[in-house]
Amino acid sequence: MADPDHATPRALANGKTRIDFQTEPGRYRHWQLTVDGDVATLTMDVDEKAALFEGYELKLNSYDLGVDIELADALERLRFEHPQARAVVLRSAKPRVFSAGANIRMLAGATHAHKVNFCKFTNETRNGIEDLSENSGLKSICAINGTAAGGGYELALATDCIMLVDDGSASVSLPELPLLAVLPGTGGLTRVSDKRKVRRDHADVFCTTEEGVKGKRAVEWRLVDDAVPGSKFDAAVAARGREFAAKSPRAAAGPGIKLMPLTRTFTPDGVEYSSVAIEFARTERIATITLRGPAAPPPPSVDAMLSLGAEFWPLNLARELDDAILHIRLNELDVAVIVFKSSGDPAQVLAYDQFLDANKHHWLAREIRLLWKRVLKRVDLTSRSLVTLIEPGSCFAGTLAELPLASDRSYMLIGLRAGDNKPPAAIALADVNFGAYPMSTGLSRLDCRFLANPADVDAAKAERGKMLDAERAQKLGLVTFAPDDIDWNDEVRVFLEERASFSPDSLTGLEANLRFAGPETMESKIFARLTAWQNWIFQRPNAIGEEGALKRYGTGQKPIFDTRRV
Amino acid sequence: MADPDHATPRALANGKTRIDFQTEPGRYRHWQLTVDGDVATLTMDVDEKAALFEGYELKLNSYDLGVDIELADALERLRFEHPQARAVVLRSAKPRVFSAGANIRMLAGATHAHKVNFCKFTNETRNGIEDLSENSGLKSICAINGTAAGGGYELALATDCIMLVDDGSASVSLPELPLLAVLPGTGGLTRVSDKRKVRRDHADVFCTTEEGVKGKRAVEWRLVDDAVPGSKFDAAVAARGREFAAKSPRAAAGPGIKLMPLTRTFTPDGVEYSSVAIEFARTERIATITLRGPAAPPPPSVDAMLSLGAEFWPLNLARELDDAILHIRLNELDVAVIVFKSSGDPAQVLAYDQFLDANKHHWLAREIRLLWKRVLKRVDLTSRSLVTLIEPGSCFAGTLAELPLASDRSYMLIGLRAGDNKPPAAIALADVNFGAYPMSTGLSRLDCRFLANPADVDAAKAERGKMLDAERAQKLGLVTFAPDDIDWNDEVRVFLEERASFSPDSLTGLEANLRFAGPETMESKIFARLTAWQNWIFQRPNAIGEEGALKRYGTGQKPIFDTRRV
Repeated sequence: MADPDHATPRALANGKTRIDFQTEPGRYRHWQLTVDGDVATLTMDVDEKAALFEGYELKLNSYDLGVDIELADALERLRFEHPQARAVVLRSAKPRVFSAGANIRMLAGATHAHKVNFCKFTNETRNGIEDLSENSGLKSICAINGTAAGGGYELALATDCIMLVDDGSASVSLPELPLLAVLPGTGGLTRVSDKRKVRRDHADVFCTTEEGVKGKRAVEWRLVDDAVPGSKFDAAVAARGREFAAKSPRAAAGPGIKLMPLTRTFTPDGVEYSSVAIEFARTERIATITLRGPAAPPPPSVDAMLSLGAEFWPLNLARELDDAILHIRLNELDVAVIVFKSSGDPAQVLAYDQFLDANKHHWLAREIRLLWKRVLKRVDLTSRSLVTLIEPGSCFAGTLAELPLASDRSYMLIGLRAGDNKPPAAIALADVNFGAYPMSTGLSRLDCRFLANPADVDAAKAERGKMLDAERAQKLGLVTFAPDDIDWNDEVRVFLEERASFSPDSLTGLEANLRFAGPETMESKIFARLTAWQNWIFQRPNAIGEEGALKRYGTGQKPIFDTRRV
Repeated sequence: MADPDHATPRALANGKTRIDFQTEPGRYRHWQLTVDGDVATLTMDVDEKAALFEGYELKLNSYDLGVDIELADALERLRFEHPQARAVVLRSAKPRVFSAGANIRMLAGATHAHKVNFCKFTNETRNGIEDLSENSGLKSICAINGTAAGGGYELALATDCIMLVDDGSASVSLPELPLLAVLPGTGGLTRVSDKRKVRRDHADVFCTTEEGVKGKRAVEWRLVDDAVPGSKFDAAVAARGREFAAKSPRAAAGPGIKLMPLTRTFTPDGVEYSSVAIEFARTERIATITLRGPAAPPPPSVDAMLSLGAEFWPLNLARELDDAILHIRLNELDVAVIVFKSSGDPAQVLAYDQFLDANKHHWLAREIRLLWKRVLKRVDLTSRSLVTLIEPGSCFAGTLAELPLASDRSYMLIGLRAGDNKPPAAIALADVNFGAYPMSTGLSRLDCRFLANPADVDAAKAERGKMLDAERAQKLGLVTFAPDDIDWNDEVRVFLEERASFSPDSLTGLEANLRFAGPETMESKIFARLTAWQNWIFQRPNAIGEEGALKRYGTGQKPIFDTRRV
């Protein structure tokens, strides 16, 4: 069968050598972000010539990862730069087309790894739209002025209110199955069944009908909230925006802070940020991410935090860690293991957590916590072996203690290291570890870890604020192994070598199961039930084979399917 | 990449032409079922020469589908033939080996479809062990006398109590990842994380350690319940069996009824059972399953039901439907659509449901309901398009009304059919539709269907016992489409043709998502999160390619992996 992964990966456009997740509104090619009073508008106007890769054009507001990187950026700016915005309207600048969804030629020529990582990022972005509504009070409206197909409709599904123009032709559709023999890959099926709660037989008809559903039936089947005649559409959308803004609990206090470009230096063997460093050991297929603790105590006041803006240590660190994770995910496919290390004073880290706790009702403190929540979820969903090494001089405390808890396993050095004057490693928990950063399943990482015995969570809670040495941390179940200096190097080396020797795919599947014990939520279902099936289909000849639907789309030739059901 | 599906499928052993799910203890080659008082013993003693397919031997109590068909049969017999059994001990007759798990050479040479269907069936069997404990009070103990690797340990995980001999060598392990580059495919990861609630870092170590875990550590990590020295092992297992039997709520009333062989006739175009018929339209890739209503009213008493035994209509029908579904799943891979039809008197079907309700505390009535629950779950999990055609003369009432509710969509004919004297189609709900047959998610099919508006469930409930015509059924949301005789043939034909034209894989993924709106349970996680990832891995070159781990196992050559992470 055809395996696009064995073909030469498609070249990035404009001679680029890596996918960059950093952008800013002044550089957008596909979106405009405007804010008018308390209502923001995100206008999709995809520049068909500005694709991320060579070989396809982004017609009809179809999108690729580059388009979604801008959307994700715009959503962050709504959070941090426009705290006065209380509602956001997503709309299209193209006549009679909202969005044709993910670009089919992009998908047809993408490697399997890119398809999977693309869907994962777009899913995270859409989950971010829902988080923006649920936790920041910024309600969203999707104004569908024409065709919203596939990923176009999936984007709409992530908003709180879908308004469809009722003009006899505008429609919503998920044509992936009849047209391309794949599934809607960005939460579409799950949001149809679990968010919009469309009756399952209606959903079956909808998802197998290439042309989609229009007008009244779309409302009756719960696919959209309103179907509005064309003459009244703009006014209705504007009114809904005002209504949502008026009802929003978001405390409209401007001005925001400016999300300045990250300080980054790329070298052949790593990336240097201001508070984060990535170091690649390429032969060993290891990326070590070192997080640096704060260089100074927390600011004395909220105003001082606002003055620091994007330089404020917890915000800066979260943005850098997020960028580092995304860089490894998309640009460094050969990395088998991400090793988390840290350096700094754990007491200082706790002081920052206390500062954020003390100001948790301030919009900026809340947004920083929400950003950390999303970044940590991104870590949970990163398909690499994750290990935290807790060594003398490290600062895995409070928020940073979530990293060993998010790791597949952790090693903590007992005692001193020969020839090193750093004090023994300590980790420390804080209030923030007990609910502020839920996983996609809704559980805190400690609740998930101690599913067998919730009393273990209470025992850990009783130790908040204490510097826990390796033996104590192991006794509390917070770390996996606690070797001393004599055993440390061998134990860690053997583990890292072993990980790099395993099949990457089987590790991906293992992580997707072992990291998510306990309940499921709509969000976690998207990454489990939906994504896993989609990945399977993305690997099947009926989709990606030479005679498959994705390959044959647009050629005038019908796909030829292996008709045997699996 | 290698695609074993394009190779000639492996031949069944002994010249067989289809996989048969019917067996009986007298024909077992791999298991012995004994019952001593209220404690049953299931002894695994796999005959290595009696594999289902040619080309491999079942050494070391490794298993293939044939072995699991016997286990599934034995569990049914424990339910129906041995109601006095209150505990069951699973053990091995091989020295120092409990079970080596699913046979690796079988897996390596199996088509993708067979691998997937094999895992699905073994999962259903293991879920049945848990159902036996939870709902029939028959508690299970797994006595591990040596190696329990992979599927061997997964079988143990399905029991209530895992006892491991502590002799310095006996171990439990899930070596699939390090050894074969696949996942444990029969619920192992999910039961480790969600049933045994093993801490996630311990689970990570366990699932990446080929040799597994022994003795005290296995207990400490919650992988087993007890580690017992060899000299005391048999006595400890026997004592635990007596203890569990004494605590069991199962009403120990024998004798049971005999599960007689099903009456079946295979023809080139179908299978004729006594109450079920399958008809294949092979060109159209349709299997029509017609269920026949009862020929007589329910028996006057429980004793009369016991006298009828396996001939009792609801029991006979459930067994035949189960066999029909399994036959299509495993032997008729080209079937795209299963069409459910029925014929009979819906009032009679309701009368049987009332009889079972009236006697719901009797063990046999309870077991029949539990069997129906499992058969209906099997329907939910069958990867074919499911449609119910509700026509004049049909009897989709009560228990049988679950079939249109389990279908992806349904068509109900309005009014009379020209030239036909049958009365208009009617469906009828009964108490049994409101909780007796939960899906794997724990929801009733009506609760799942009306997730958006639970009041719709109440509205349907208010109609219990009434014969609902097509218009009323559609208004209540119970059927998808209600065409009249003029439109019926075209509408149904177009739908069936369209289904057969779609990619089978994408339909499998669609069903796995749209059929299971709402919450997840451990059971549903096994079929979603775990199975979907496993299926993906089963399709990846790192497992099944010529250089993949599954292909190279036992050749002395190490697998060569594509190291890029997805």
